[in-house]
Amino acid sequence: MEAITTRSINERILAVLPLFYVGWADSVLSPSEMKFIRSIVANMTLLTKSDKEYLNHWTDPSQPPPEEVFKSWLNAIKAKASDLDHQQKSALVELGMRISSAGTSGEQLSKETYDSLVELEHALAIDNPVSAKLLLDQIDPLAGSESIDISFDVDELSKLLDGRYAQTKNRLRQLLRDPLFQLKHEPDKDIYRLRVLEQVKELARQGVSAYSFPKKYGGGERQGDHMIVFEMLAFSDLSMTVKFGVQFGLFGGALYLLGTERHHRKYLEPMHKAELLGCFAMTETGHGSNVKGLETTATYDHDTKEIIIHSPGFQAGKEYIGNALHSTLAVVFAQLIVNEENHGVHAVIVPVRDQKGVTLPGIKIEDGGYKLGLNGVDNGRIWFDQVRVPASNLLDRYGKIGESGSYHSPIENPAKRFFTMLGALVVGRISVGLAAVSTSKKALTIAIKYALQRRQFEAKPEHPEFLIMDYPSHMERLIPALAHTYAYDFALHDLADRQVADDGTDHRKIETLAAGLKSKATWHATHTIQESREACGGKGYLTENQLSALKADSDIFTTFEGDNTVLMQLVAKGVLTEFKQSFHEEGNRALIRYLLKKANHKLSEFNFIQKRNSDYGHLVSTEFIEEAFEFRFEKTLIKLSERMRKYLKRKVDPHDVFLKTQMHLMELADSYIDKITLESFRNKIGDAPDHLKPILNRMFQLFGLHTIYLHHGWYLENDFIEGIKSKAIRKIRTKLIQDLRPDIEGLVNAFGIPDECLAAPIAFKEYT
Amino acid sequence: MEAITTRSINERILAVLPLFYVGWADSVLSPSEMKFIRSIVANMTLLTKSDKEYLNHWTDPSQPPPEEVFKSWLNAIKAKASDLDHQQKSALVELGMRISSAGTSGEQLSKETYDSLVELEHALAIDNPVSAKLLLDQIDPLAGSESIDISFDVDELSKLLDGRYAQTKNRLRQLLRDPLFQLKHEPDKDIYRLRVLEQVKELARQGVSAYSFPKKYGGGERQGDHMIVFEMLAFSDLSMTVKFGVQFGLFGGALYLLGTERHHRKYLEPMHKAELLGCFAMTETGHGSNVKGLETTATYDHDTKEIIIHSPGFQAGKEYIGNALHSTLAVVFAQLIVNEENHGVHAVIVPVRDQKGVTLPGIKIEDGGYKLGLNGVDNGRIWFDQVRVPASNLLDRYGKIGESGSYHSPIENPAKRFFTMLGALVVGRISVGLAAVSTSKKALTIAIKYALQRRQFEAKPEHPEFLIMDYPSHMERLIPALAHTYAYDFALHDLADRQVADDGTDHRKIETLAAGLKSKATWHATHTIQESREACGGKGYLTENQLSALKADSDIFTTFEGDNTVLMQLVAKGVLTEFKQSFHEEGNRALIRYLLKKANHKLSEFNFIQKRNSDYGHLVSTEFIEEAFEFRFEKTLIKLSERMRKYLKRKVDPHDVFLKTQMHLMELADSYIDKITLESFRNKIGDAPDHLKPILNRMFQLFGLHTIYLHHGWYLENDFIEGIKSKAIRKIRTKLIQDLRPDIEGLVNAFGIPDECLAAPIAFKEYT
Repeated sequence: MEAITTRSINERILAVLPLFYVGWADSVLSPSEMKFIRSIVANMTLLTKSDKEYLNHWTDPSQPPPEEVFKSWLNAIKAKASDLDHQQKSALVELGMRISSAGTSGEQLSKETYDSLVELEHALAIDNPVSAKLLLDQIDPLAGSESIDISFDVDELSKLLDGRYAQTKNRLRQLLRDPLFQLKHEPDKDIYRLRVLEQVKELARQGVSAYSFPKKYGGGERQGDHMIVFEMLAFSDLSMTVKFGVQFGLFGGALYLLGTERHHRKYLEPMHKAELLGCFAMTETGHGSNVKGLETTATYDHDTKEIIIHSPGFQAGKEYIGNALHSTLAVVFAQLIVNEENHGVHAVIVPVRDQKGVTLPGIKIEDGGYKLGLNGVDNGRIWFDQVRVPASNLLDRYGKIGESGSYHSPIENPAKRFFTMLGALVVGRISVGLAAVSTSKKALTIAIKYALQRRQFEAKPEHPEFLIMDYPSHMERLIPALAHTYAYDFALHDLADRQVADDGTDHRKIETLAAGLKSKATWHATHTIQESREACGGKGYLTENQLSALKADSDIFTTFEGDNTVLMQLVAKGVLTEFKQSFHEEGNRALIRYLLKKANHKLSEFNFIQKRNSDYGHLVSTEFIEEAFEFRFEKTLIKLSERMRKYLKRKVDPHDVFLKTQMHLMELADSYIDKITLESFRNKIGDAPDHLKPILNRMFQLFGLHTIYLHHGWYLENDFIEGIKSKAIRKIRTKLIQDLRPDIEGLVNAFGIPDECLAAPIAFKEYT
Repeated sequence: MEAITTRSINERILAVLPLFYVGWADSVLSPSEMKFIRSIVANMTLLTKSDKEYLNHWTDPSQPPPEEVFKSWLNAIKAKASDLDHQQKSALVELGMRISSAGTSGEQLSKETYDSLVELEHALAIDNPVSAKLLLDQIDPLAGSESIDISFDVDELSKLLDGRYAQTKNRLRQLLRDPLFQLKHEPDKDIYRLRVLEQVKELARQGVSAYSFPKKYGGGERQGDHMIVFEMLAFSDLSMTVKFGVQFGLFGGALYLLGTERHHRKYLEPMHKAELLGCFAMTETGHGSNVKGLETTATYDHDTKEIIIHSPGFQAGKEYIGNALHSTLAVVFAQLIVNEENHGVHAVIVPVRDQKGVTLPGIKIEDGGYKLGLNGVDNGRIWFDQVRVPASNLLDRYGKIGESGSYHSPIENPAKRFFTMLGALVVGRISVGLAAVSTSKKALTIAIKYALQRRQFEAKPEHPEFLIMDYPSHMERLIPALAHTYAYDFALHDLADRQVADDGTDHRKIETLAAGLKSKATWHATHTIQESREACGGKGYLTENQLSALKADSDIFTTFEGDNTVLMQLVAKGVLTEFKQSFHEEGNRALIRYLLKKANHKLSEFNFIQKRNSDYGHLVSTEFIEEAFEFRFEKTLIKLSERMRKYLKRKVDPHDVFLKTQMHLMELADSYIDKITLESFRNKIGDAPDHLKPILNRMFQLFGLHTIYLHHGWYLENDFIEGIKSKAIRKIRTKLIQDLRPDIEGLVNAFGIPDECLAAPIAFKEYT
């Protein structure tokens, strides 16, 4: 073997040498990986038997090349690479191809060799700029410098993200640059609220508040644009965004969707012009998630043709009501009682202030006080003491009181009626999800731009300090969150499109998806903003850098428009119902039989080899990632169904069954929404122009493998993968993060957030 | 088999029946669990062969008892239980014992039978009040009511937590009840800061600021009490707590620990009386984590015997400096240059304002502005323009300028000197860790007390709505966090004791532990407060309920006194150094050999059966939990050492090696601190009075299994457990959470947080 260690390097081996050099310098490879590498080398037609013998000698993890051999490799590479320019040296496979052919006939090596080298680079897990830098620093310090080009066209990606709404988005970008919307911390809530009120009125003057209403009342009949406006406003002040949503989305939406012609005629135009301000008085102190349990009553008095609105106690007061201090009208949700019969929750228009802003008799309104954030929104509490309004104030699309004083509804079933009325919330939930994505985008943009300037700790005296973005812990913090932000962006826009296209038949499904995506996107925002804040250290804590407002303001997103924990259970119930229905009420047994069959079929496909298949190409393939997401969803569904069936057989009260299986319901909802999100991402790539596919694919792979790795314990427990494959997933996940490192500035620039909305001094180059 | 299903129930079987009833009604048991249950039944001497046959028949998961059999069980139990009072029916084993003996001779069944029943209850995973409720609701609705007694003496647990510091803690509890410390949101930073300044002065007047200083300067020479004061203050306003820490801990600590006699004589007494206010000017805009890279210079001028303090540029300005707007003195950290030689970072006393509060010439101080939280702390920026101070202002314990103008230090090595000076930060880090535990305690107390009153959703019309604390998702959110809060409390108090007892020899180790426990406890606080906020829904978002202040104020804990990510790397380096040293510089190889041997030994112990051992007793045993923690730490250490050795052999620059292995270093630090925390918890139980051991054991088990489950993917990957055991861990973890449910109010009451500090209306019964 002495002969091998001292053998001189020939031209053929040179092609492989950059990879071997970095492989040994960078990685701790497992025996099975080394075996795989040997098989690639064995199949390379470029190499002679003796070359293969030489290379195989250096694939034994227990026998690393001694220092002198290692140095001889470096020198051989250096000698041949001296003629190449920086760019030509910056990728290992290309470098190998060039130094090898450069020495012989000058011809390019074959496509086959190139493919083998790429495969080898994958197997060594060094196909990323960070690994490549290891060699480049040695042979050409300039080539390995930090200014690595972004691999895609940022404007094109931006166009893809804007999609069909480019015009509206650009309109809003333009509008939000106006000094009126300048981000400025205002500690006094009363001053802040007045500023926000003026901003909301200006938005109405600019006409961006009317998109979702009928043209005959000055609207645009473009529901999609309404959601997009909300999404874009979230790049600016979230108090303004939320107040906008309360006035035009909740209050306006209730008038439009729950009211009938006479209400539309009277209210829609002044409402969307912000001449008439109103609030959406649903939640009570005692009842938030459980809207069905509201205590406020709306009792019909046939003698006077009036409805009497009443709060029977302190806990029956309406709470957290946005716009409460500026409203003249309230849409009040209350138990409608006609002829002593309770017909369930209905909405009634109740004037709460006169034209001068004085609170009307019987109405008590209190300022809700300071909150963690959103202090520019005037949230308040409202109690009603036997307040009488004309019966015509009942928003009566789904329930009318006839001339004779009797109640009628187009929907017989009270539960169904209730859920139909609440269905009006679906646009709000999609909008909050979109806004949460905007806050994630903004936080990541600030944190990443700062990390691309901020330096801390040098390798050696005299050296520049490292960019903090180049620390693995920093990449770990920000880059997976970036991939997930793209994923939720795609999924929520798909959902918005679906809502716009819906003729009513798709409503149940949209509700399920809206509840789930709202929850996942808002939890993601909370997580992402927290990581971004910590990633910016003390700078992230200063109000001037916007992360504090993002954090404080968006925190309630996980609670309002439906508490996430409650919503995730709705998702699970929606999924269970859907599956039951698709079996024509055959019941659970048929469902379980079907699922078990399907799963067993799947599992048999995942034979011993497949469970251990740690091949790079396999792990980043759409097929594997989709299969994994699908498996998690189906297995969770099967287990949950089995569990519920046993309880129900035991005559456990159905409500108790839901209580006992609550954590499994949450898990089902989570796996379902992950699956839906992945599908949207995949479809987006399908529709994207070819030149954007590579970057989108890397983000898709990271979203996929990061999600799988979050649940790797579950996958191992359920025998979908074995330890070796789990480790490979982690490794490739890390590699994908490093691969994306050069592109992250482009990836955040593609969001197209106006500088005036970013506002944080640390996000701008001039800062340092 | 017909005979079996219709066989009537005898007295012996009755003992087991409550368990079987609930087991079938509640659980989805795996075949291997059922096997285990059969083996228990087989060994019960109480039962005849025919009894065993009967019971075994009902241990086949594929053959659940039909409804009529199930009902016959319930009727048999009901009939015999009618004479018992509520209390006697509230636990399944006791119920079985009673109904069985009640029917025969009236004698108590044997201890052996009792033990078998307890074992069976474990195996069925129904030894918790929530499972028991399932039967109790059927046979006696009142016995299953929500008012389950707390299983331990709360006052005794409180005493255990207070430990040797009971007197100081009670003193602070008393003090913080004073209206001067009333928690009241103040949006205007300038007003807020003045209030906090007055509070800090009052604390000084009360003498609680002097504990850590020498008696001859009016101090208490009780360093431990100083940390405890900080811990207790964190129950109240965190701005006050932090300003207190800056003035007496950082500023006072620097004067005391880095200064010498003449500084002590002149400054210590006015400092701890808050007559002299000062700041600790270390961090610069350009350098936070990398203190060694500070740019401010302190140049000695031998002609005038002065030191010239200078900030060479904008980025060299001191930033985030607490007390900056109220200080007359600053302890400035700067590069000390004597005779044109840089001796590294030293601390110099620099007057920044005159007695009237006017800023002195050459000093520029700017208000740092609003922050996410801690707006009662006057953080600012300071720049120095060639400011001259007498050379005697050098805090010269570790570096002196002699009469001749030359520099001397008792510590020759500049790096060692630097770290010795920074060692003064260790008390601050322990204190911040303790304060973080206090914030977790407060957040959990508020969230749990609210959850024990708040109801939402009823099972059936007319039924009361469920307490939100009884939802599994709610328990999942709050109960593991509670166990971890106890764990960090114990670990940090152990560390504080260790610091108090240290004569200097233990300093390195204490630094490592302080860095790690500070990081883990502050991340835990961020997580816990977030969960608590979400658990309180909209109420949690209102300022009046304190969670918003806790969240906003404590958020920077993960950054200040050392960024957690940086600190965790220090921990890892500390661990690596310690292991290297313990091998007498034999180097890495010896270390790895040793570790591999130890790990192989361990792994051989964990043979096939052990990896699958899902026995309840095994999984909750201290041995298993400790072994698992130990294994994770050692395996991580081995893998990291191997990886580093390979890089170093390849002559990769050591700094690059740390960069490349950064995520592994973080993992090592994490596993190490987990292990230390577990040890403290175990020792605490050892020292606790016997009657507290059961509750502490349950908390220990939950802390242990929850931590193991967080890493179950890692354990599976590393072949420490198999899927079946991983599932069992999850199940038992869930069971432990349910077991702790009745005790949680006691567990938070034991923290002894004064009502005046809780302050949140939702934490009080009168609220509803």
